[in-house]
Amino acid sequence: MKILVINAGSSSLKYQVYDMSSETALASGRVERIGMDSSILVHEPHHTDETSEVSEILDHTTAIRKVLDKLTDAEVGVVKSIDEIEAVGHRVVHGGETFKGSVLVTSEVKAEIRRLFDLAPLHNPACMMGIKAAESNMPNVPQVCVFDTAFHQSMPARSYMYAIPQVLYKKHKIRRYGFHGTSHDYVSKQAAAVVNRPLEDLKIITCHIGNGGSLTAVQGGKSVDTTMGMTPLEGLMMGTRSGDLDPAIVPYTMSKEDLTVNEVNSMLNKHSGLQAISGTSSDMREIEEGMQNGEPNATLAFEMYEYRIRKYIGAYAAAMDGADVIVFTAGVGENSATVRQRVCEKLTFLGVEIDQELNKIRSKEPRYISTPNSKIAVLVIPTNEELMIARDTYRLANNAK
Amino acid sequence: MKILVINAGSSSLKYQVYDMSSETALASGRVERIGMDSSILVHEPHHTDETSEVSEILDHTTAIRKVLDKLTDAEVGVVKSIDEIEAVGHRVVHGGETFKGSVLVTSEVKAEIRRLFDLAPLHNPACMMGIKAAESNMPNVPQVCVFDTAFHQSMPARSYMYAIPQVLYKKHKIRRYGFHGTSHDYVSKQAAAVVNRPLEDLKIITCHIGNGGSLTAVQGGKSVDTTMGMTPLEGLMMGTRSGDLDPAIVPYTMSKEDLTVNEVNSMLNKHSGLQAISGTSSDMREIEEGMQNGEPNATLAFEMYEYRIRKYIGAYAAAMDGADVIVFTAGVGENSATVRQRVCEKLTFLGVEIDQELNKIRSKEPRYISTPNSKIAVLVIPTNEELMIARDTYRLANNAK
Repeated sequence: MKILVINAGSSSLKYQVYDMSSETALASGRVERIGMDSSILVHEPHHTDETSEVSEILDHTTAIRKVLDKLTDAEVGVVKSIDEIEAVGHRVVHGGETFKGSVLVTSEVKAEIRRLFDLAPLHNPACMMGIKAAESNMPNVPQVCVFDTAFHQSMPARSYMYAIPQVLYKKHKIRRYGFHGTSHDYVSKQAAAVVNRPLEDLKIITCHIGNGGSLTAVQGGKSVDTTMGMTPLEGLMMGTRSGDLDPAIVPYTMSKEDLTVNEVNSMLNKHSGLQAISGTSSDMREIEEGMQNGEPNATLAFEMYEYRIRKYIGAYAAAMDGADVIVFTAGVGENSATVRQRVCEKLTFLGVEIDQELNKIRSKEPRYISTPNSKIAVLVIPTNEELMIARDTYRLANNAK
Repeated sequence: MKILVINAGSSSLKYQVYDMSSETALASGRVERIGMDSSILVHEPHHTDETSEVSEILDHTTAIRKVLDKLTDAEVGVVKSIDEIEAVGHRVVHGGETFKGSVLVTSEVKAEIRRLFDLAPLHNPACMMGIKAAESNMPNVPQVCVFDTAFHQSMPARSYMYAIPQVLYKKHKIRRYGFHGTSHDYVSKQAAAVVNRPLEDLKIITCHIGNGGSLTAVQGGKSVDTTMGMTPLEGLMMGTRSGDLDPAIVPYTMSKEDLTVNEVNSMLNKHSGLQAISGTSSDMREIEEGMQNGEPNATLAFEMYEYRIRKYIGAYAAAMDGADVIVFTAGVGENSATVRQRVCEKLTFLGVEIDQELNKIRSKEPRYISTPNSKIAVLVIPTNEELMIARDTYRLANNAK
């Protein structure tokens, strides 16, 4: 069975085609600048060179039609006919409290995703455009939604409730949801395989650190706490997001700078984090470069970033009364030996011991970076959210047959 | 030398008289409802019964005059003449970045405290009323300010900076200040004495948990991180304060419920925390009672409260790469064996081992509650902010002679 995985943004669409007999990706690609001047489609078949095409792509339906043209193209295509694609899996950011796992798309599912627009006004409407565009291009193919929040629905109330009037939870669904669930789920399962122990017995701290970032405490394969909250703003310092703040800073800044609700949201989500402290970049590679060159703001940005990851590792060890495995994943987690090194070198109280040489290796394979003596196994595991989406889509589409 | 310690609120004034030759309190008391109907003065001399008096007390100057009358009263007084009081120490909530320690009051000091009104609009103006009232009643006596924030001025930038545009720090002084500094300072010094090791060598986590609450990581006698932030709202769940939140919840709630900046501040500071979750009380004793009676909301409130303390202990162990001592202090920390028990029983990963019997003892003395085998000494130390203020006042008044 071949599966198309779609990750739709408001003006972009990423895709991947999986052959599930071998769980291999046949092609991936992206459409950018949908609805703008000179939209671009970049198609990367795995058997030959990538190809790109600039044209007018006014909406997501056209985008998917163009993608399907590429997928069936004689030269750069990976299937003979669209009929070979037996299911489509969609990444959906916010599943609220309704979706505790992946689901086949039905009209009820779409109605519920629409009800959740309020909680993820930037993301869920875009996901919905992706679903509708796929439906209109492939009307007889089962569509599956995989939610970024679903994995975290196992959290106990002490983790997901905020200490504010309960009416805000009951009326407006204000609670911790957490995000990157598909990634935390994937790498925690992989981690159990790498350390060769049953997932049920393990306490794992998964550090998904990319441009956005979150840590999750995974106990017995279930999320018991995570750093992102009602929105992806809470927790770690990120590329352009503030992460944790004294909540009183929000009204204080609004007063002092005469900002609206939208302006303060924009400041905290788009103009904060590494970007704001370094003054130069939201990209950890450039922050590290700045630090090596002795730039004080880059050094401060790095220290704040690393320090918060470290503190949350300590917090989650306390949440689970210990940890067996720490996993680093995503852009920074997979690629920055410096971040991993600096985080781990002050975790000797947990018995963490990093092998400096292993930590320096660059690889696409899951691997240990801790020594055999380390009381906690520290791993680097490349994440693969698309594969997780393809797996869930495969399972649900098969069940529906 | 005898010293008067004053803690002024907007409509209240607490006081204590110390004889510094023996560091003993001779009397304490409070004036409540200043400027309202039926103000009340409660005077508690330590040599005889407490006395109280309802009268009209329209301002802080009158309040202090009435207090001085009591202190020199033939029956309930503790000094023969006001001249015996050689210095006055004031608790001041916010010292900003200027005050890294206690200071003698000068006109420059008062001007700076006034500049800080903006950062602590509820507290600093009240402290200023206390200072002026003491000056007008005792014009030739040195006045000393002891700041709640001063002890935390040793924090490194990675702890005190928020990941928001740096202009907000430079222009509006938005950073972490931390509070309860006098208490964290006092109990960490006491802790070193109890474990009989030099403070310089110790990593101590001090848990000041009362109606307000904060944890501090004290390394070598210096605060390196603390849970309260720019204001006392951040960090732990408190009696009526929310503590940590996804910052995005603030603008979201303002939009949904059409709240102003003042209303959202009031909600988060006065109508959140234990009160909001339990729906019944902000008092931990009543929360525990509710939990024992199986009330679900009281149980949830307790679990959230305990869980956050535990997570911060883990975080601060990570901040310092370990901990030698954990100290519980203030109302809840000194008196709730249940909170201490529940926090510590999931810290076995740190080697914490509590002696259940020791933990149950009620006492006013500093004491161990951990077993001799515990890798971290866990102590209960009654805090004494007034004594710390008296000591600093004594030292500075003597130096000024």
